[in-house]
Amino acid sequence: MHTSPPFTGSPRITMLTDFGTADGYVAAMKGVIAELAPTALIDDAAHDIAPGDVHAAAWALAGYWRRYPLATVHIVVVDPGVGGPRRALAIGADGRFLVGPDNGVLSRVLSQVTAPRVVAIENEVGPSGSVAPTFHGRDVFAPAAAHLAVGRPIGDLGRDIADPVMLELPQATARGGNVHGEVVHVDRFGNLITNIDARLVAGPARVVILGSSCRLLRTYADAEPGALVAVIGSQNVLEIAIRDGSAADALPARRGELVVVEPALP
Amino acid sequence: MHTSPPFTGSPRITMLTDFGTADGYVAAMKGVIAELAPTALIDDAAHDIAPGDVHAAAWALAGYWRRYPLATVHIVVVDPGVGGPRRALAIGADGRFLVGPDNGVLSRVLSQVTAPRVVAIENEVGPSGSVAPTFHGRDVFAPAAAHLAVGRPIGDLGRDIADPVMLELPQATARGGNVHGEVVHVDRFGNLITNIDARLVAGPARVVILGSSCRLLRTYADAEPGALVAVIGSQNVLEIAIRDGSAADALPARRGELVVVEPALP
Amino acid sequence: MHTSPPFTGSPRITMLTDFGTADGYVAAMKGVIAELAPTALIDDAAHDIAPGDVHAAAWALAGYWRRYPLATVHIVVVDPGVGGPRRALAIGADGRFLVGPDNGVLSRVLSQVTAPRVVAIENEVGPSGSVAPTFHGRDVFAPAAAHLAVGRPIGDLGRDIADPVMLELPQATARGGNVHGEVVHVDRFGNLITNIDARLVAGPARVVILGSSCRLLRTYADAEPGALVAVIGSQNVLEIAIRDGSAADALPARRGELVVVEPALP
Repeated sequence: MHTSPPFTGSPRITMLTDFGTADGYVAAMKGVIAELAPTALIDDAAHDIAPGDVHAAAWALAGYWRRYPLATVHIVVVDPGVGGPRRALAIGADGRFLVGPDNGVLSRVLSQVTAPRVVAIENEVGPSGSVAPTFHGRDVFAPAAAHLAVGRPIGDLGRDIADPVMLELPQATARGGNVHGEVVHVDRFGNLITNIDARLVAGPARVVILGSSCRLLRTYADAEPGALVAVIGSQNVLEIAIRDGSAADALPARRGELVVVEPALP
Repeated sequence: MHTSPPFTGSPRITMLTDFGTADGYVAAMKGVIAELAPTALIDDAAHDIAPGDVHAAAWALAGYWRRYPLATVHIVVVDPGVGGPRRALAIGADGRFLVGPDNGVLSRVLSQVTAPRVVAIENEVGPSGSVAPTFHGRDVFAPAAAHLAVGRPIGDLGRDIADPVMLELPQATARGGNVHGEVVHVDRFGNLITNIDARLVAGPARVVILGSSCRLLRTYADAEPGALVAVIGSQNVLEIAIRDGSAADALPARRGELVVVEPALP
Repeated sequence: MHTSPPFTGSPRITMLTDFGTADGYVAAMKGVIAELAPTALIDDAAHDIAPGDVHAAAWALAGYWRRYPLATVHIVVVDPGVGGPRRALAIGADGRFLVGPDNGVLSRVLSQVTAPRVVAIENEVGPSGSVAPTFHGRDVFAPAAAHLAVGRPIGDLGRDIADPVMLELPQATARGGNVHGEVVHVDRFGNLITNIDARLVAGPARVVILGSSCRLLRTYADAEPGALVAVIGSQNVLEIAIRDGSAADALPARRGELVVVEPALP
């Protein structure tokens, strides 16, 4: 039923930051983009990443970057090392672009693709000619994103590198007949998202976390209100939730908590 | 002094959710829209609706949906029953469109219009061919909104229905010379918005809530700082506020609290 | 390396409010703008200014308004006196426009420019013909912004005035060989931004606040994690931070706190 409308020439740029929405930092970046890429449509992805939480930002980004059309530019600025020795990256992958600090925040994306092009940003493309060592979002990443959005070559930004920083992402493992994984993200609803891929969970299952257990069901609404439930979430990994409540608060549980999946009778 | 500029062909889509702005869920929906309706301008309405608070979302939506131009598509995803038996709706009303779950979140809009068209979404219009039972925002509502935004028929989405879920909205009533109503929304400022329409409040009035009383004035600034005050708010209903403070915190009061309006001497 | 792309005709409008993102107030304003200026691109600057915090909004605005291209219209609605005797302003300055209440929220901008044009909005330009005394954002400022965004004259909005309300902004002063200033903003990261301009800080320096002291370094990352550090921030004033932490929480410190800069050995 769907046929793609023609591409319109309005590039999309998304922004994911830990800047919050009370200080104007996000707007300073948008202003730079509007100046350098006036036709760009700027989408806020999320600005309430906990300050400096590179893992949370990497997880959030992985959930949307490839939903966007080809040529979209995704900016990620969760950058506690700003102004220090960490590099600034521009990446071309699967027809989209990403810019952000080389601290692992882009590494979930890199682990999802083959043959990405990774460039260390070294050339000035912003309007000012000066870069504040505390705000590369405004002075490095926004100009680089605008540069890419208007169709200029990624290679103009700097030199190719082969060793971007990768987060050490824990892997789920089979142990006996069970699967051992862990919580890798806690979302706004208090849902506990794990690193256990749907393919590791065949058939009826019982899920154990912190001494509590629950069944694997199809969706939250299949559980009783207030009951712990496991589902295969929207990113095809197992998550643990409480219907009409917060699993993170009730257990309580945080990132890193062990999760075990056991086969169950139907 | 105002003459309408010509319509430009860029459809507007708005988004109201309880997704917060830390997880990337909002961005996944925007990406789908950008893919399917590349010229659409996407406006964030609000994403900090309390998780699952259908009443709050219904109230918020009622305040803006008709301010937008004809052909605007409003998406509302406050959807605790996602993936369960609740239907998904697309509505045409007063020249705008709305999409969201059939849990009452659209019912304030339905109560404001005559002869809306209400369709239960049953046909796949998204890019993937698969629908995650935990994320209809991304896999059902975003594609349906894009479908409408590019001008395709609402009837393509599914079959017409006549029985959408309606919230039971409490009505203010006249009792003796007084009006009895209740708080139906508490806003960010701690203002207590009631279901008492301006037309029920003729002339000078005294407003009583939880044993406290105050006068009906024209605007917050007509009261002393820190004093309780009632005004006719921007949606033409009575609200109770504290100038430079929060009535919700000070009383304290919540949704459902009784409010009585009594005639007063001028 | 940068050459300006041609101007495209899509005006940009930014919005800075204390409305939060749970009530639909922001969307009501966007709807009015979309109706009156359908080609306008609307950027959220920030909506989580603390309720009524005119100083915080004035500070945030100063950080981005001039980063935007010529002809941008910046709306600021932090307006505790809405509906009272305070005037509504439209300002032309440095090729951009600003609209907002005459309560000082625009005064940092006014202090940065020469010969701004300041108009008291007195003429109705909105669609409704009526103005709610509690919501000038929707009924006065959004229509005025749309009016300016579509290129209509600022003079149509009302009469020129020469006495806009200016916040009393404290000035840093030299005392002996030291500089005395104060905290003028606390940002999301708990960074303490002062009124001490970079030009007042020549060479190695020691910064004292609330009995704690730290060195002036180049960026946060030059400090040890958890250590107090002073840097010249992205707006060219001294700020005090804790690497990977919150200086505001740790000291603790708030707006108005005294900050002293002393010369130090290299």
